[in-house]
Order: sequence, then C-alpha cells, then structure tokens
Amino acid sequence: MKNLIVGQSGGPTAVINSSLYGVIMEGFAHENEIGHVYGMINGIQGFLKGNYMDMKELPSDTQKALTTTPGAFLGSCRYKLPEDLADPVYPLLFRKFEELDIGYFFYIGGNDSMDTVSKLSRYAALHQKEVRILGIPKTIDNDLVLTDHTPGFGSAAKYVAASVCEIGIDASVYDTRSVTIIEIMGRHAGWLTAASVLARKFEGDNPVLIYLPETDFDQEAFLTRLTESFQTRNNLIVCVSEGIHDKDGKFICEYASEAGVDAFGHKMLTGCGKYLENLVKTRLNVKVRSVELNVNQRCSAFTQSRTDAQEAAQAGAAGVQAALAGETGKMVSFVRKSDSPYEMTCGLVDVNEVCNKEKVVPQEWITKDGTDISDAFIAYARPLIQGCPDLPIKDGLPVYAYRR
Amino acid sequence: MKNLIVGQSGGPTAVINSSLYGVIMEGFAHENEIGHVYGMINGIQGFLKGNYMDMKELPSDTQKALTTTPGAFLGSCRYKLPEDLADPVYPLLFRKFEELDIGYFFYIGGNDSMDTVSKLSRYAALHQKEVRILGIPKTIDNDLVLTDHTPGFGSAAKYVAASVCEIGIDASVYDTRSVTIIEIMGRHAGWLTAASVLARKFEGDNPVLIYLPETDFDQEAFLTRLTESFQTRNNLIVCVSEGIHDKDGKFICEYASEAGVDAFGHKMLTGCGKYLENLVKTRLNVKVRSVELNVNQRCSAFTQSRTDAQEAAQAGAAGVQAALAGETGKMVSFVRKSDSPYEMTCGLVDVNEVCNKEKVVPQEWITKDGTDISDAFIAYARPLIQGCPDLPIKDGLPVYAYRR
Repeated sequence: MKNLIVGQSGGPTAVINSSLYGVIMEGFAHENEIGHVYGMINGIQGFLKGNYMDMKELPSDTQKALTTTPGAFLGSCRYKLPEDLADPVYPLLFRKFEELDIGYFFYIGGNDSMDTVSKLSRYAALHQKEVRILGIPKTIDNDLVLTDHTPGFGSAAKYVAASVCEIGIDASVYDTRSVTIIEIMGRHAGWLTAASVLARKFEGDNPVLIYLPETDFDQEAFLTRLTESFQTRNNLIVCVSEGIHDKDGKFICEYASEAGVDAFGHKMLTGCGKYLENLVKTRLNVKVRSVELNVNQRCSAFTQSRTDAQEAAQAGAAGVQAALAGETGKMVSFVRKSDSPYEMTCGLVDVNEVCNKEKVVPQEWITKDGTDISDAFIAYARPLIQGCPDLPIKDGLPVYAYRR
Repeated sequence: MKNLIVGQSGGPTAVINSSLYGVIMEGFAHENEIGHVYGMINGIQGFLKGNYMDMKELPSDTQKALTTTPGAFLGSCRYKLPEDLADPVYPLLFRKFEELDIGYFFYIGGNDSMDTVSKLSRYAALHQKEVRILGIPKTIDNDLVLTDHTPGFGSAAKYVAASVCEIGIDASVYDTRSVTIIEIMGRHAGWLTAASVLARKFEGDNPVLIYLPETDFDQEAFLTRLTESFQTRNNLIVCVSEGIHDKDGKFICEYASEAGVDAFGHKMLTGCGKYLENLVKTRLNVKVRSVELNVNQRCSAFTQSRTDAQEAAQAGAAGVQAALAGETGKMVSFVRKSDSPYEMTCGLVDVNEVCNKEKVVPQEWITKDGTDISDAFIAYARPLIQGCPDLPIKDGLPVYAYRR
C-alpha cells in the first residue's frame, strides 16, 4: 500500500487550506488503498530539505479549522524546477519519494505549480516511476486555462465586491465632490477587478468606472469620464487593476516611478492608484483618495465564500479519486453545467496544456470603451461568492489552524 | 407634544447607524411624549439648507438594516459652529427648530460634534429656548474623555485585530525573512493601533512591535529591534499609528515628503508605513511590504463587533431617555462596572467637559521601551470586540440601508 503526499505552492488564498482538507480527508477515507498521508512543509523546496509531516497527527479540530483558515497551512514556496529533466534534482526528489514509499503526489497551486506537476509527471513517465502526480488548482487571479474558474477566486472576488461597496458607503457621507480610486490585485488578468461590478446595487451606482489590464488605459479619456460622471453624482468610485497600462504597454504605475524619487534617493515605487490620485488631484482639483486593497484580498476569512471553500475541498478530493483511478499528469478542473441554478462538477485536464498559459477576461465581457463590465460577467461571477463561512470564534476573533 | 430631530456628524464608523437606530426606536417608543422623529440630512449643515426627513417613512427592514450598515445613513458634515454665540447662524437654526416644533435634538459624533452640542445648548440656555440638546458619542479613535470607550472603537479594533492576524498568516507562508509594516489610523491617540495586540495568540507571536503616537519613535532603535527579532522568527509584523513622530515631534511621514517629489512635482505624500518600508529595505536588505489598512477600518460590516453595535444603540436610547427626563447639554457616556464578566451602563457627562479634549492611551498601558502594549489594555479592549453581526445577505453580499 503506497503513501500519499501533498504540498502547497505559490501565493496563499482564503481557501488553499480547504483544498488541503479535501486531499487529506479523501486520503484518510481510502484507508485500504492509501497508507500514510503526508504534507510537505514549504512545498517541494522544503521537502528537498527533508521537511514534511504526517497529517494524521493533526488534532481533529485543527483539521476542521483548515476549511476556514487563510494562508498556506503547510507553508509555501516559489521554486521552479529546472527545464532540463536530466538535472540531478529530479532523481534526488524521486529518491525521497521512494524513501517514503510515495505513490500519490498532489500539488496545490497556480501556474508555476502546474509547471512543477508537468515536469515531475514527465520525469516519472520517462523513468517508469510509479508515482501518480496531480495538480489541484489555486489562485485568486482566476487566470488558469481549461477550467471554468479557480479555487480562491470566489473568496477574493467577494472581498473585493464587499470592500468596494463599503468604501462607496464611506465615501458618500459628505455631499461634496470626491473621487476614490481603489487598486485591486491583478497584473495581467483583470478578473478580480471585474468582480468590483458586483458591488453595484442599481443602474448608475458605484463603481462608476472599472479599468482592467485587458484594455489600454488613456489618462485623458479617464479624466473626461470623471468630469462627465460628476454630472450625475458627487462621490465617484473608480476600480483599477494594478496592471493597467497605456496603449504602448507602459504600466501606469511606471509613470510615478519615472519622476518620483523617495527619501532614500530610489525610484518611488507606488501603485497606479496613488499615481492616479495625484493626477486627478492636480487636474480636477477635487478631493481624492486612493485605497490599495492589498493582501487582505487573498487572506480575509470573514469574507470567505462558502461556495469557494466547498469547491476547493471538492477539487482536492477529486484529485485523490483520480489518482486512485490511475490518472497522472493531470490538473483537476471545474466544469460549469449551468449559471442559474449554479451547477459545477470536477473534471480533469492535461497539466501540460495548463502550465505557463494565462486566461484573461474575454473582450466581450468588457464594454466597448473599456470602462465597464458586462452582465455576462455578473452571471458568471455571482454564483462564486455565495455563502458565508462558519468561523470558529474565540475571544471575538476567528480560530485558525496552526502548525506548532 | 414636541418633535425630535437627530443628526450625524464627522467621520463614519461601523456603528454610527446603530446609534441612529437607538435614537429613533426610543423616540417611536415614547409616542405619548414625542411627536415626529426627524433626521437631519448631512448634519447641521444640511439642516440649515432645509434638508431633513421623517424617520417613520423608512420601511421597517431599512430601520432594522441600520444596525449593520456602516457609513452615515443620514449623511454627515464637517461643520464647526462659530465661537461667537451672537453669530446670526444661531437664531437661524433655532428658528428652523421652532418651525418643526423640535423639543429634542441629538447629535451623534466625536469631538467636533460635541463642540456643536456644547454651543447649541449654551445658546439655548442663554435665550431660554426649550430644546433639549444631547450628544451621542461616536469615534473609531476612542479619544473622547469622561467615557470608558466610544461606540465605533470596538468594531474598528476588531477589524484591526482580525486583519493583523490574517496579514500575519499571509506573510508567514514562506520560510524567508520578511518585514510587514501595517499602518493603522490614529493621528494623536494610539487606541486602534494598540488593538493590534489582540491579534497575538501566544507569547512572542506577531505583531512583534507596536508603535503608538503616545511615545517618540526612534528610527535607529526600530531597526535594532527588527534585527534582534529576526533571531527568533523569520516573519515580522510591525504595527504603527499613522501619527508616530520622533522626539522633536516631527511626524515620521514627513521624512518621506521632505525628500520625495511625485510625478507632478509635488511633495510626495505617503504614510509613515511606506516610509518605513523603504527605510527597512535600504538598511536591512530584507523583503519588506507595507499595508495601509485605510478606510476599511471604519466601514467593515463583516467585522462589526456585536457588543459595539448593541452599545451604540443603547447610547442612542439612553440619550432619548435623558432628554425626556429633562437633561440637556450632556453627552451619553459609558461606565464600565467590570471587565470580566464585562458589565457596562450608560451615564451622562457635561458636554462642555468633553469637547475639544483628547484622551490618549495611558503611559502605564505602553511598555517602557514604547514597542508593546500591556495586559491591562488587553483586559480593557477584549470585551469590546465580542460578537458577530447578523448580516442580512442577498446575492452573496450584505444588504445595507440606503436613502433613495
């Protein structure tokens, strides 16, 4: 009877630990087919240093708390395996797999992690290693191809929508003109910024303008749109992706660092939100504020989407089932059956077709002038933010799962 | 039978609408003593322009939703009444009160709003105007004197504690050295920043360093403390008030604007967090990130403290009861009977003793070297963040009360 090992890699999300929960619970459930269920500490990188744990040792309340704990319980890494499969790290890694009698390996992560899954599964095939290697998707960016969406996106989208709504309420208490610019994560794909449209409660409501990196950003057109928008309301909320750029591909945040120098004589590194705040202040002479949603987008437990957490666990379990059925070199995918009522099942895709590719928001979901998001996106995204987490609370704050 | 009017003033909080709810519900409950219950739109400033509404016109689900809606439902203003009580604005305002047959006026706000209550009640006494004028406290800053704490602080403190905890989890997924600097609201009083200590789950846990404006900040000592802290852990979370300053009273954020110039040739306006990020990067050569918690601190519904919301409503109701009992020129205060079990009752204090004063964190609640917070503060603050709101949810997001 072979053992199982699971690792987490890349940036954390609000539900990457739900996927971990899904893998280990499904592993425990197959006690006649799977021996030990191990977890790599700090991904492949930590495992190469000999760091792993037996997941059975976790108290059951800690196991349960994984489903509502943000971050990466096992620790993560950013480690790219060499392109050359003849590199000595590969036999080293598989020797370590053999020492632990590993038959099933799951890697929870995004693009780069799927690259790891691809390389390891190709190496295993080349050298007849009997380890089944599967990827469990994870990224708040929602930019993996061949899957309807990714675990982690729904919770981040919910954080964005809820925060944009609350910031809009906060900004509207005075009856004087103001602009609030909200900078949202996403360098190349604007999925999360698009989710800000879910904050809109009626036609004409905030956010009045939404800019994704999928279209070119024109500073003058932006200022004109703000001036027009002031004709109908006093308090304007604008949502921008961190990666917005002009028609020449130059990032808007680069405009700041070009001219700005900080107190240490270095180029000033600020986001596009801060740059646009200064632009609007200078040109329109109104009250302006910029808010960078920052890491809270990916680690807020209070705004976790229960749908997202459940699907993340489902993806983990589906990976274990697929491995037991003999699959390897695959990534678990999400296949949407219907928007309303929302129906989703898990599928499997060739991991080589997923890694190193990027799915951006389709042009038809962005309005022609590049300042708004279509109803089709709303129909797509809304089911993903449903449901609130059942957070265990102590002393007024959530209780999280910790490694000690 | 006289009518009642209530207004909101100053910056919004997560529970200022709970106080509004408390005032209007208590007003409705005394239907034999109070006629109409009016709300000023945009405070005194809007009222002077003739903007108000009859609160009975609100649908009952909107009334209920006030208890979980952040922002200021009636709209707010930042309007300081003239010092000279002979100014013509006073008779104008009282004429408007007479037109509406107002006998009871409640103003929900912080320091500046209590100044308004003070002036109006003194004017009324001087001119034998039969309007009873009371203040209902509100501020996330917790800096009002003569009250144990202020409505709004508990929810903001809970947001800070929860966010610091989550950012700490997020920052600890990699096993490389990093510093995360979290900038928290509070120019002169460090109450909210002190609340970050509630995120600590065990001795030595993050946040490792906490700096309030109540003590002087020494940049070199800070760098030394970081270097020392790296001996015991890799990922350091540091919490700073926006208003920290050096021993000469110079704000740390001013160090940035001194040297920095933005893309528009203006002085660079960034917070102290961004400045310290650059300082640590330059001097310690480790991965550094700064996070400004920004307006979400005061407008997050998900992290509303139920205790705070209930007390805010209680303060509103106590104000109405006091006015009916003949009181005027007073602010409702909170009197703590015990920390554990937590017991609080409402009192009344002379509003003239409250306005234009500021309560800072006592020195004995700050450790000697000015980098940590004592257990006495924890005992004080923990009861205030208890309980989660019962948020009405639609389409995955909270339903808020809106004026249309």
